Amino acid sequence: MKKDYAALSLTAHEQWKGKLEVVSKAKVDTRDALSVAYTPGVAAPCLAIAENPEESYRYTGKGNTVAVVSDGSAVLGLGNIGGAAGMPVMEGKCVLFKEFGGVDAIPLVLSTQNTDEIVAIVKAISPSFGGINLEDISAPRCFEIERRLIEECDIPIFHDDQHGTAVVVLAAVTNALRLVGKRLEDCVVCLSGPGAAGNAIARLLLARGVKDLILSDSKGIVYRGRSGMDWAKAELAERTNRENRTGDLAQAIAGSDIFVGVSKANLVTPDMIRSMNADPIVFALANPAPEILPEDAKRAGVKVMGTGRSDYPNQINNVLAFPGIFRGALDVRASRITEGMKIAAAEALAGMVGDRLSADYILPDAFDPAICGVVSRAVAEQARKEGVARL
Amino acid sequence: MKKDYAALSLTAHEQWKGKLEVVSKAKVDTRDALSVAYTPGVAAPCLAIAENPEESYRYTGKGNTVAVVSDGSAVLGLGNIGGAAGMPVMEGKCVLFKEFGGVDAIPLVLSTQNTDEIVAIVKAISPSFGGINLEDISAPRCFEIERRLIEECDIPIFHDDQHGTAVVVLAAVTNALRLVGKRLEDCVVCLSGPGAAGNAIARLLLARGVKDLILSDSKGIVYRGRSGMDWAKAELAERTNRENRTGDLAQAIAGSDIFVGVSKANLVTPDMIRSMNADPIVFALANPAPEILPEDAKRAGVKVMGTGRSDYPNQINNVLAFPGIFRGALDVRASRITEGMKIAAAEALAGMVGDRLSADYILPDAFDPAICGVVSRAVAEQARKEGVARL
Repeated sequence: MKKDYAALSLTAHEQWKGKLEVVSKAKVDTRDALSVAYTPGVAAPCLAIAENPEESYRYTGKGNTVAVVSDGSAVLGLGNIGGAAGMPVMEGKCVLFKEFGGVDAIPLVLSTQNTDEIVAIVKAISPSFGGINLEDISAPRCFEIERRLIEECDIPIFHDDQHGTAVVVLAAVTNALRLVGKRLEDCVVCLSGPGAAGNAIARLLLARGVKDLILSDSKGIVYRGRSGMDWAKAELAERTNRENRTGDLAQAIAGSDIFVGVSKANLVTPDMIRSMNADPIVFALANPAPEILPEDAKRAGVKVMGTGRSDYPNQINNVLAFPGIFRGALDVRASRITEGMKIAAAEALAGMVGDRLSADYILPDAFDPAICGVVSRAVAEQARKEGVARL
Repeated sequence: MKKDYAALSLTAHEQWKGKLEVVSKAKVDTRDALSVAYTPGVAAPCLAIAENPEESYRYTGKGNTVAVVSDGSAVLGLGNIGGAAGMPVMEGKCVLFKEFGGVDAIPLVLSTQNTDEIVAIVKAISPSFGGINLEDISAPRCFEIERRLIEECDIPIFHDDQHGTAVVVLAAVTNALRLVGKRLEDCVVCLSGPGAAGNAIARLLLARGVKDLILSDSKGIVYRGRSGMDWAKAELAERTNRENRTGDLAQAIAGSDIFVGVSKANLVTPDMIRSMNADPIVFALANPAPEILPEDAKRAGVKVMGTGRSDYPNQINNVLAFPGIFRGALDVRASRITEGMKIAAAEALAGMVGDRLSADYILPDAFDPAICGVVSRAVAEQARKEGVARL
């Protein structure tokens, strides 16, 4: 960090005492106003919703409200610090929801890390919300929690650490390939760190037509039959590593066109970069220190490079995606967020760069106020196409 | 209703589309600001809380945020309409929390009405909040849910339908007795409708020294050994009805000094009023139509009368109590809200009337901006006295 953001952040957080405030749109300064916003008048919208639950979207804030739910089991790079300690991040996420997407978001941190309990809790509170953003829940629990909630709830459930990251990576990859003149289906992709984000990136790339994908974790290349893999990794092993290669990260990277790291600082050496195919594309997203620093990667011949950091070009930043994705899903009252909607979001994001495309500009600037509208329209349109929109 | 509040309320709710809005106190319009409110700076407050959970009160909104939780099993006079249909009431309650108490409140309506599940859910989300306001949960489930949550959580748990009502009734009774020159411990009290509110009123009156209390429900007088009572009623039967009388409501009222109705419209006749002791005090709180109309009660000789309605004098309105009670509890970080704190709130409320006391003015006006401060200071002071305050 160039500045001492830790100290600045502590001071700012102490002044805020909570980055969110709940304000009333209803005036209740007279008996009459109280009788409209509260009893006895409020009985009328209650009865309307009792008769037809969809009226919740007409008479309450449900349709624009999202819960940001975390058990604090995988907060930033800090690991399992628990729900309460994750609250500053969840409040921050809610700030981004509002400032970038116009969504009213509420942080809910949990005292349990039990998968069954989390599913039951989120399902039980879901009538209050138009969507649920799962946040900072560790893999592979996050996959099961999300899958079961999608099955059991009638509102969008979205684990942003997975899919937000995957959408932005896909957008970045799309534009990087334009620069080097390759097609995704012809590329060999190496992904280091198949955790929450890595898993979702792998699945989205596969859905997008990648045929040769190889994963690597702390034990080396992921291959069919490797012992000790969790079920999520075993499932991915079935769909990746065509030739069922074994070996370490260096062997995984060699001969690839694209490297995506969501793993650990300094795992990748210049020699590994030099072992990649011509015009290598590298996304080194470990935070705060990437798998390889951009200056080292460029010296080793990388053509297009992105990181998770704001002090280098091409930041892979979830804020490019999730506000627009939720905005679009809420706008058409989508019952879920499909793979197609994620791909539409990625394409819309990539498309925003247009002819300003260069090796240092493959994604729109996070503060471009047009992003949310462009992404949300693409997501909403795709939801309608797929028949998951209710408006 | 004099006005058509139902129609006005539907229109207003459709315009609001949610009476609450979540706004950000943190600006995130530059990369630098983002680095303070969110990553990487936000890691610092997270780590501080991980080290010491009490730091949640310093670095997040926990200390000023309350969840308004309902399963929709007993919404207003509408009965069991379910959580989703209760949302307009819960949003309204949150509006009152903010406008009258400066508390950020978040409505959470549940899809379950299972006692064990509700306890588990509220406990699990409790790290996010400085207090929990239970709302519109049916008796006797509400008693068990509240009791278990008080045992299992380290923040105040308060079922306002019970205790908010009880506090305002106690304040009203206190001032009514000043008018007629009686002492509470000498009075015979008859209470009709020992549900959520009735139960809490009975307990608070007993805690305040009432010696002769008789309860009546749809089956008549509550007495020890009566068959078919739920556990909460059976427990109250042990502590009330000194002579273990039996009979109907008319027999319950006869010879009482104070009648409190939290039951049904038009249950009480002028003849019943005439059977009460001299200078009868009547609180007929059934809503919207009271147990007896004030004009009929006065003609039958009632000295002091209150209802739940805003179009008669002496409205027993929970908004007089809960904002100040929570404000006070949050201000000193109380771990719970004790009987003593409720009594302190009632006394503070009663004391605000001072020498303006008359048969038509036994409670301060709900819009008196001084109420929250007076109540909260009394509550906070009592919390400190009892050692439940952490500040």
